[in-house]
Amino acid sequence: MQEKGLDLLWVTSPPNMNYLSGYDGWSFYVHQGLLVSLDAEEPVWIGRHIDVNAARITSFLDEANILGYDESYITDGKHALSFVADIVRSRNLGNSRIGVEMDTHYFTAKAYAVLSEELANASFFDADHLVNWARIVKSGAEIAYLREAGAITDIAMRAAIDAIDVDVRQCDVAGIVFQNLISGHPDYFGDMPDYQTLPMGENTSAPHLTWTDERFKAGDICTLELGANRYRYHAPLARTVFVGDPPDGIKRLAAIVGEGLEAALDEIRPGVQAQSIESVWRGITRRAGLRKESRIGYSVGLGYPPDWGEGTASLAPGDTTELAENMTFHLIIGIWNDHYGYELSETFLVTETGAECLSALSRELIVKDG
Amino acid sequence: MQEKGLDLLWVTSPPNMNYLSGYDGWSFYVHQGLLVSLDAEEPVWIGRHIDVNAARITSFLDEANILGYDESYITDGKHALSFVADIVRSRNLGNSRIGVEMDTHYFTAKAYAVLSEELANASFFDADHLVNWARIVKSGAEIAYLREAGAITDIAMRAAIDAIDVDVRQCDVAGIVFQNLISGHPDYFGDMPDYQTLPMGENTSAPHLTWTDERFKAGDICTLELGANRYRYHAPLARTVFVGDPPDGIKRLAAIVGEGLEAALDEIRPGVQAQSIESVWRGITRRAGLRKESRIGYSVGLGYPPDWGEGTASLAPGDTTELAENMTFHLIIGIWNDHYGYELSETFLVTETGAECLSALSRELIVKDG
Repeated sequence: MQEKGLDLLWVTSPPNMNYLSGYDGWSFYVHQGLLVSLDAEEPVWIGRHIDVNAARITSFLDEANILGYDESYITDGKHALSFVADIVRSRNLGNSRIGVEMDTHYFTAKAYAVLSEELANASFFDADHLVNWARIVKSGAEIAYLREAGAITDIAMRAAIDAIDVDVRQCDVAGIVFQNLISGHPDYFGDMPDYQTLPMGENTSAPHLTWTDERFKAGDICTLELGANRYRYHAPLARTVFVGDPPDGIKRLAAIVGEGLEAALDEIRPGVQAQSIESVWRGITRRAGLRKESRIGYSVGLGYPPDWGEGTASLAPGDTTELAENMTFHLIIGIWNDHYGYELSETFLVTETGAECLSALSRELIVKDG
Repeated sequence: MQEKGLDLLWVTSPPNMNYLSGYDGWSFYVHQGLLVSLDAEEPVWIGRHIDVNAARITSFLDEANILGYDESYITDGKHALSFVADIVRSRNLGNSRIGVEMDTHYFTAKAYAVLSEELANASFFDADHLVNWARIVKSGAEIAYLREAGAITDIAMRAAIDAIDVDVRQCDVAGIVFQNLISGHPDYFGDMPDYQTLPMGENTSAPHLTWTDERFKAGDICTLELGANRYRYHAPLARTVFVGDPPDGIKRLAAIVGEGLEAALDEIRPGVQAQSIESVWRGITRRAGLRKESRIGYSVGLGYPPDWGEGTASLAPGDTTELAENMTFHLIIGIWNDHYGYELSETFLVTETGAECLSALSRELIVKDG
């Protein structure tokens, strides 16, 4: 904030709110945020009055820094950002230089219009991803949660692979996946899953479709992209399952993707640029005739719906972020052809000398007898 | 649109996109939307190129009306709304009167800034909830999905009640809930759950907390708020479980809430105002000494994270919406005291003469032997 010349920051992004205050409630469908002032010891949580108890329970904030707006802001046409503006003015901060997260999911066009109109003497600056970038290197406590999340993801992935079989409904496999993601580990629970996909057949040709009640049959392909989380710290993982005897084309694709992913993982160490990881992948797989246009990974960690990515570094051409120890990425290869898809991924931690994958599962195409 | 004098509408809200085109992908974490033109037969879907296949598979749109932006809009600092502006200009619609959903979750401050800057000759109008209000009366097909969702919710709620017992971990109950929500009914699957809460003990004092790995013990109270969905049509339901012998105060609270909810349900019929339902509830429960400040319900149906509510009518003081046949509401009584909470709800369909509840479960406080 000091570098950017900001006096105040209005933080709307749920993972950023969590990172700065501990707040963890499923309340982000209404306007809420943290007011971070350079001059104050603690941020101020502002949200709907019915969520004040959640802020008391989950955040470390002082009672005086938890402020709820009443129900008239939900049902009577009053806007919650007017309430925020009132608080800013009442603290004599109406002339501040205020950072706002312009392109974050829950900071709507209207929220900004109301805030900037009601604080006409303030100046506004785009502080999008300012907090996200501060999150990119993980602490020991964060890494512990991510490793636990990785262990739960493996439990759920193994259960999914075990359950897939001819005549089993896809939704029954998905149900088992969610049960395992949430029941978690014998020693610790899994938190509310964000998005998980489990498409089958032609639906695998698109990355963001889910399951149906179709039954598996010989010749089906199924991509599993799962991510358990511990206190919202996610460890995603993707594998692809083939029911029956896979055609040579799919076996070849699996081999190329596997080779490319191994080579990319080998390249990881502190000091290497994010784009170099993608470039190694691209070199190997292009020679084998495979083209993929989207990025092959992104920084991962604390997340709330609709996204477990952190919105900062990407493993993509042009991204010059230097990898550093204790960064975590989801390295995901998704190939979406016209009629089917193939996915393989690892969530890794950058170590002093390389990469530590959070999953212990093997990386081959998984074949279930048809 | 005609009444509001709009030529074009940029629809960002995922349920509104689904309603107008059928599009159903888990891709709303990136910018996407529908361009609805008064002069065109069909809306135009604009999204990330990797989601084009999902639009082909799930929407009814013509191939020519599905337009994907490339990866440079994700990783190279280009903004997807510039791509949208290019399309508007290329169709000679740059001088239009354009409606935008100013306060919808995924229409960010930046999205609006880019769109309005790049279309400097257009004029912009707030069309927030324009499509939502068109969704408030359900069709026969929508009602069929909602009834199926209601049947799945009951299956999951029964499974949760069966599973709760002394020494059982809360997360294991939550896992069973999700498995049932997704496995669904023997004849049809449940879709990806949105938000579900399952707090226990002191966490029940806040409406938006979830589970932990604590074990149930005699004296625990647990509120279950679940909502299965069929093709994103939700039928939420809340019940409260007490482990062991409930204190008189909780039994009394359950009786008052139950009586108030029954009276509110009795009041429902076409032509009655939304606020009248709340007023009946309030009259009965105030006399019994209960105060509740938040609304007691909202229009429900098509929903995506982070919210299954439709954002239109509320059962709250001041809401003069007249109930009409085939509207659907979640009538939810949530009482959050300082140290515990109590929840009871029904999702109902307004019929020709009254209300049809989508759940068949009884409405008492559920007592599990401790």
